[in-house]
Amino acid sequence: MAITRNTKNVPYYLLGAGAFDQLESLVDERRRAATGPALFFVDHYFQNKPLAARVPAIAGDRVFFVNTSAEPTVEVVDAFASTAKAFLNGAQPCCVTGIGGGAVLDMAKAVANLLTNPGLAEEYQGWELVKHPAPYKIGVPTLSGTGAECSRTCVLTNMRRKLKLGMNSDFTVYDQLLLDPELTRSVPRDQYFYTGLDTFMHCVESIRGSYRNVIVDSLSRTAIAMSEEIFLGDKDMMDEENLEKMMVASYIGGMAAGNVGIIHPVSAGLSIVLHMPHGIANCYALSVLGEFYPEEHAQFTEMMARQKVSLPKGICKNLTDEQLDGLYQGSIVHEKPLINALGEDFKKILTREKVLSLFANM
Amino acid sequence: MAITRNTKNVPYYLLGAGAFDQLESLVDERRRAATGPALFFVDHYFQNKPLAARVPAIAGDRVFFVNTSAEPTVEVVDAFASTAKAFLNGAQPCCVTGIGGGAVLDMAKAVANLLTNPGLAEEYQGWELVKHPAPYKIGVPTLSGTGAECSRTCVLTNMRRKLKLGMNSDFTVYDQLLLDPELTRSVPRDQYFYTGLDTFMHCVESIRGSYRNVIVDSLSRTAIAMSEEIFLGDKDMMDEENLEKMMVASYIGGMAAGNVGIIHPVSAGLSIVLHMPHGIANCYALSVLGEFYPEEHAQFTEMMARQKVSLPKGICKNLTDEQLDGLYQGSIVHEKPLINALGEDFKKILTREKVLSLFANM
Repeated sequence: MAITRNTKNVPYYLLGAGAFDQLESLVDERRRAATGPALFFVDHYFQNKPLAARVPAIAGDRVFFVNTSAEPTVEVVDAFASTAKAFLNGAQPCCVTGIGGGAVLDMAKAVANLLTNPGLAEEYQGWELVKHPAPYKIGVPTLSGTGAECSRTCVLTNMRRKLKLGMNSDFTVYDQLLLDPELTRSVPRDQYFYTGLDTFMHCVESIRGSYRNVIVDSLSRTAIAMSEEIFLGDKDMMDEENLEKMMVASYIGGMAAGNVGIIHPVSAGLSIVLHMPHGIANCYALSVLGEFYPEEHAQFTEMMARQKVSLPKGICKNLTDEQLDGLYQGSIVHEKPLINALGEDFKKILTREKVLSLFANM
Repeated sequence: MAITRNTKNVPYYLLGAGAFDQLESLVDERRRAATGPALFFVDHYFQNKPLAARVPAIAGDRVFFVNTSAEPTVEVVDAFASTAKAFLNGAQPCCVTGIGGGAVLDMAKAVANLLTNPGLAEEYQGWELVKHPAPYKIGVPTLSGTGAECSRTCVLTNMRRKLKLGMNSDFTVYDQLLLDPELTRSVPRDQYFYTGLDTFMHCVESIRGSYRNVIVDSLSRTAIAMSEEIFLGDKDMMDEENLEKMMVASYIGGMAAGNVGIIHPVSAGLSIVLHMPHGIANCYALSVLGEFYPEEHAQFTEMMARQKVSLPKGICKNLTDEQLDGLYQGSIVHEKPLINALGEDFKKILTREKVLSLFANM
């Protein structure tokens, strides 16, 4: 196998039910290490809920609630960055904390990069474009599965360029994770399933691809096995033990993530055109990709049945030609993962007709 | 499960056959980031061998060859630290690189701690005693299995205090790993087996213990499964693919390491009294611990047969009373792992008579 690039791990993690109480001491440590206020990005779902009152913000800090009814866009990142810079008035924060699902974790990462790098978010969509280290970042997932807590990217929708692309950089990685499975207990079951399955999806895509290494393979297999235990086991997927297992599977799967296959491109098409959240869009994608991932398609179908989750059919009926073209373009633009899965000649397999037939089956 | 302490991961790794060639660019990056020379600690086995010529030392750097015929002692750490400080003449190195097996990796970690912390090595044997960050450290294992490349300790023998104990600290952790499985190709088969099995041992002890968490459990199970593939699979344990798999198993097992059980204490007794290297001492220990680890004892026995490795019997015959007492004391002193395995009343199970009967069976 080829030599990996120099790979960054999240330097610190703290895990356990109730660990959220330790956020205050982690932030206080940053207050002692650096001047500047603490910034918190919190899922708007928690506004006026008990968790919001437990955010350890003090006078002079700032809490931003992030609307997660849509996936993060470059425009929203730019707006938050602009507000944060005005608030900071030339200073840098002692730390930036993201508390939420993948969208909030990614939003905090993206805004943090813009606090130390000039310009607009879209200037950093790509690989190794971020030039200066971001402020210290703490990540607190409240939803398991995306791997955003570990990843070196932050997926941002850019409607002008019609793509979803992150700021791929070691500077995007969190400095500290606080993994408290209790925070995921109140997630609606369907959303819990769709998001949890993201780990299974990107790990399956990784081990079925051609860009591989032994570390990524081993961690992917581990996260897949854990997903099977959670979604095909005897205990309920949201049993206390499984909440913790899913949070760890997401973390381990996140360490392995990077090279996806066909599921994520097709999913991205759905998100671009139908503004569908990432987790459920992945599920729709795998639901029509049985010929490419037969074993995993069967497992996934069993997981849905076991967990009583369904995907209503017909979501791509009655679309305009422009929308259909958007679905095709929004999928096929992801050349790197498609080459990983199908080789350089992927367009011979994923013809326009073939891609549109996949969407028609959803 | 309880909340973990805040756990440090090795921040960067680079993996692949031939990756050693990239050491030069990693060190050069440090030369640009900091003043001061580069220090290299290299297993004396490589003196006058091709690898020594590939160490990217330039004028003004210093290469120390570490005699690994014995396990690292506090005296040798102090001697290297003293020589290094005289050489540095008040400066700090831009980086310290360890190239070797666990003994060399640990030696480099220990000496690095003493470059920024005053006094003698034994003052830092224990937990959280290192007060100042060590210089930047690069770890290059040439032998797989110990997990020293990942661990927050550096096991040091202290004959005056009759114990093996490391400098347990986040400052002990390497900043960068370079994992090149090619470097392990020339290891003698017996040594490769004994050292490789160290991963299996500490991961088994971890999942059979009571101090647990889901991350450590998952990574331990992964490393155990990889060990089974390597030592019980169809391919030779030193087949190219297995060299890489073993190096990754050691890394993943090292991320999981921390809470051992009965094997390591018994092994420590052997090392203290008979100066036996850690890997083979572990093997002797598990060979007589079938009643505590029945399944793993059977697997280990099969691995030895499959790989044509044997452990000559009778090593603890003809010992003096003082030596026998040393074996007992050198084992039973490790209270934390023994409580992990057997509970607070471990001395009721591991009586002096019982412990000595274990050694008599070797």
